[in-house]
Amino acid sequence: MDSNYIYGKNSLIEALKADKRKINKIIISKSVSIDDKINQIIDQAKDRNIVYQFVPKERFREFDEMNHQGVVGYISPIEYLDLDEFLGNDIKENSKVIILDGLEDSHNVGAIIRTAVCAGFDAVIINSRRCVQVNATVEKTSAGAINYIPIIKVNSLQDTISKLKKQAYWIIATDAKAKDNYFEVDYTGMKIGLIVSSEGKGVNRGLLKHSDFAVKIPMYNEFNSLNVSNASSVVMYEIVKQNITNKK
Amino acid sequence: MDSNYIYGKNSLIEALKADKRKINKIIISKSVSIDDKINQIIDQAKDRNIVYQFVPKERFREFDEMNHQGVVGYISPIEYLDLDEFLGNDIKENSKVIILDGLEDSHNVGAIIRTAVCAGFDAVIINSRRCVQVNATVEKTSAGAINYIPIIKVNSLQDTISKLKKQAYWIIATDAKAKDNYFEVDYTGMKIGLIVSSEGKGVNRGLLKHSDFAVKIPMYNEFNSLNVSNASSVVMYEIVKQNITNKK
Repeated sequence: MDSNYIYGKNSLIEALKADKRKINKIIISKSVSIDDKINQIIDQAKDRNIVYQFVPKERFREFDEMNHQGVVGYISPIEYLDLDEFLGNDIKENSKVIILDGLEDSHNVGAIIRTAVCAGFDAVIINSRRCVQVNATVEKTSAGAINYIPIIKVNSLQDTISKLKKQAYWIIATDAKAKDNYFEVDYTGMKIGLIVSSEGKGVNRGLLKHSDFAVKIPMYNEFNSLNVSNASSVVMYEIVKQNITNKK
Repeated sequence: MDSNYIYGKNSLIEALKADKRKINKIIISKSVSIDDKINQIIDQAKDRNIVYQFVPKERFREFDEMNHQGVVGYISPIEYLDLDEFLGNDIKENSKVIILDGLEDSHNVGAIIRTAVCAGFDAVIINSRRCVQVNATVEKTSAGAINYIPIIKVNSLQDTISKLKKQAYWIIATDAKAKDNYFEVDYTGMKIGLIVSSEGKGVNRGLLKHSDFAVKIPMYNEFNSLNVSNASSVVMYEIVKQNITNKK
């Protein structure tokens, strides 16, 4: 099996807690100060017979550019879920999924996964060609959220949208040129597929045409580019809010 | 004068456009491919008689851990605004400021500044002791937004809150343990000071006591930690939305 790694205390703690993937080994830098989180990692590793080693900090050289906090775990790669399998299961009545198109920055992808979990979304759909895949930085930025939500990798977003529509999802695209503000659409009581794309580029025209609504986030000042993870949070939480209050 | 630097294409473009700080020199890596943005930087540098140099990529070694995209500018440090000066000016009727307490991650501070500009906030207030200061990473993550909003550095948030209250600001603290959801408070037609603090720690008790409202963001799943920049976006944009629609 392919081996992969994750880094950072929270990534390790969450992966151990979720207990879904095989952790082959954990290395801890001898120069790290032992705190509650490190102890938690060690205790859990002991419980589950996972090898852990204290190693000289030189062993972390290959992870130098990462904020590893002195801990790295060698772990089996995440298992992507198949779209058909996801749609074949009992889908929740008001299921919400977020669809990432053309995102090139791992930090943004990680942050969006994290917010998606907090906001109770059911899956994150990633375009296999036009988006960064789940790597160690995505995992780290997600603060372990990656273990709480299925990640679906697809080859064609157009096909994905068709399949979602067949299952009665409404497709919402965020687009800077849209006419409606994101809070002017009623999101209550429906299944939603929310498409977000990288700043600057916007959702591609083909996908926009197949969306049911396009929404924009109003901007002040001549400076008008919101970071994509922050933009996603704003729209995801408007959906949450409407579904809690049952009104737009 | 102290010299400072900024890195990344957008940081440079925005600093040149804003034309508020002295840029002493720009270095561009010889190995970078010349695109529209690099050309824009060169053109603006020429227009303003700023020295720019193509240098071997080795010159960028000290910036290795940064996503510099082959461009670094040596620039005068940003000038913080004094709180009394800010409050002494004509304050907008519905002025909004965001107050950062105990934020340790430069990326989060940069992202919040960026959203604050998009959301039309009037200032960002930073605690001088319990928060990272504006550094090159904050500037880069802000995507140049730092040039569009005053940054106010203060020594005591308690004093800051008192001063804001005297000017009829309502103080809202975000707190995971708050009773009210963030969308249950009416933010229309008033001056607002929004306090956000680092994940985990929450707004400190002293400040919470002096706030007019505490609000929380509802969380799904047992995994319930939203990143602070995403949480800030959610609340800032609820304030924007209410002020556009004139209702909560």
